[in-house]
Amino acid sequence: MNADQQVLAIARHLLEAEGTQWGIVIEEARLGYVRLGMVVRPDMTNGHGNAHGGMIFALADTAFAYACNARNEASVAASASIIFLAPARLGEDLVAEAREEALAGRSGAFSVLVRLRDGTPVAHYQGQSRKIGGPLINQGESNHG
Amino acid sequence: MNADQQVLAIARHLLEAEGTQWGIVIEEARLGYVRLGMVVRPDMTNGHGNAHGGMIFALADTAFAYACNARNEASVAASASIIFLAPARLGEDLVAEAREEALAGRSGAFSVLVRLRDGTPVAHYQGQSRKIGGPLINQGESNHG
Amino acid sequence: MNADQQVLAIARHLLEAEGTQWGIVIEEARLGYVRLGMVVRPDMTNGHGNAHGGMIFALADTAFAYACNARNEASVAASASIIFLAPARLGEDLVAEAREEALAGRSGAFSVLVRLRDGTPVAHYQGQSRKIGGPLINQGESNHG
Amino acid sequence: MNADQQVLAIARHLLEAEGTQWGIVIEEARLGYVRLGMVVRPDMTNGHGNAHGGMIFALADTAFAYACNARNEASVAASASIIFLAPARLGEDLVAEAREEALAGRSGAFSVLVRLRDGTPVAHYQGQSRKIGGPLINQGESNHG
Repeated sequence: MNADQQVLAIARHLLEAEGTQWGIVIEEARLGYVRLGMVVRPDMTNGHGNAHGGMIFALADTAFAYACNARNEASVAASASIIFLAPARLGEDLVAEAREEALAGRSGAFSVLVRLRDGTPVAHYQGQSRKIGGPLINQGESNHG
Repeated sequence: MNADQQVLAIARHLLEAEGTQWGIVIEEARLGYVRLGMVVRPDMTNGHGNAHGGMIFALADTAFAYACNARNEASVAASASIIFLAPARLGEDLVAEAREEALAGRSGAFSVLVRLRDGTPVAHYQGQSRKIGGPLINQGESNHG
Repeated sequence: MNADQQVLAIARHLLEAEGTQWGIVIEEARLGYVRLGMVVRPDMTNGHGNAHGGMIFALADTAFAYACNARNEASVAASASIIFLAPARLGEDLVAEAREEALAGRSGAFSVLVRLRDGTPVAHYQGQSRKIGGPLINQGESNHG
Repeated sequence: MNADQQVLAIARHLLEAEGTQWGIVIEEARLGYVRLGMVVRPDMTNGHGNAHGGMIFALADTAFAYACNARNEASVAASASIIFLAPARLGEDLVAEAREEALAGRSGAFSVLVRLRDGTPVAHYQGQSRKIGGPLINQGESNHG
């Protein structure tokens, strides 16, 4: 398993271990970059029939989590911020692209751009990671267990 | 309906209109202050069996939404940031307290402290509101109307 | 020296050790609360003749620094966010009030409200502290020592 | 004057209009990207002899300001967040690179990476811009006019 295959294996491992059932799809995962997809379902809407800000954040946060754990050193979010640019309506297919911006010691900075499938920006997220140590998967573990 | 009753009516109106089924309970709602409760369910957990950061944010964001709409002028989140202080485990009863910190023109600043029921801090959230105009409920609407 | 006197001694110690010459005045400092004052000088303005956003942040960040070091355990800013509510003009007397919102292990969450002297809100800041260890002053050190 | 020349002219115009004397150098400015340099002077240090967090923010905020005004539509910062990754010592030459991440209506999202000249990351900044309208320079204005 090379470095990029390991990133995908870690992302799949994390997604399978989550109790959340948000229908998140891992579209691409390599060192420094993770792209996820998620359709806005009726149980994700706010009172205006748009995606709840909490769900847009949750999608971005998930992309960030997979990106900051990509080196197989368990990491968590220490802080995050999000700019909401435009609403996403019920049924829209959201795409979240996470990028590793910088690493320094146990900390890291990541950004996530959330857009509609046609490219319309929805939100921009910034996440601060902190390594807590320990591997997430065995180095030789395949993504099919 | 006085000002504080109206805040509660608006919070109930917003909660009922949401498609999300997070089991959020409105514990208190008055001008400048909203307190919500939410129990961490299995479908809210990350791969470690703790509350997903996205769900902690979603709870805080919801408290913020009710607080920033309290004057019956429709408002949305323009940006938000969150500091994660400690994990919340499956089954924990989370409490989120939103406070209005400052208003200026169409913008507002709010903070939300999320804690376990015993007072242990979980996260601190800061939200920026922006008025988009229009009432949320009729001025005379009762909260059972 | 009691706990509140120590907070003031630490704030003075930090202010004196800074190379910055921003004219910051410590107006009040006790456990959980620090208030600073700073007048917007010509060398603090942006191209519109208002206080540069960087200087408003710097004032809030300084109040946060004094508040998060108040227990005499050296702490630094890990992250911060700021909402700009209104401009502050040349000559205005800014007041920044920092509050400790929550502590958890080595991390802390603080908020700072920056206002004009007449109470008009200018900005709201959220800071995440991280203890790096070691005292800032000797426990018995007087603030004139 | 083409689009990229206009970005440089606007950045120079803003820098000249500022009252701050931080020794900021515009190293590159084109649509979607601005790079600035600034040396950490004695009057920019905190009590540890490192660059004050407020000054690191101020540099990033300035790069953001030039990037979000690049289309000659006056814009201001509505909010910003920063992750501090490592200290910068007295005398270090800081480089800040601002990137336009997304635009939507009157709002925009920008990121700024601050590093030492050797590439070591110091901080990662996220800024939210808001158009307030009006041009900054005459369309035909030269950058030496």
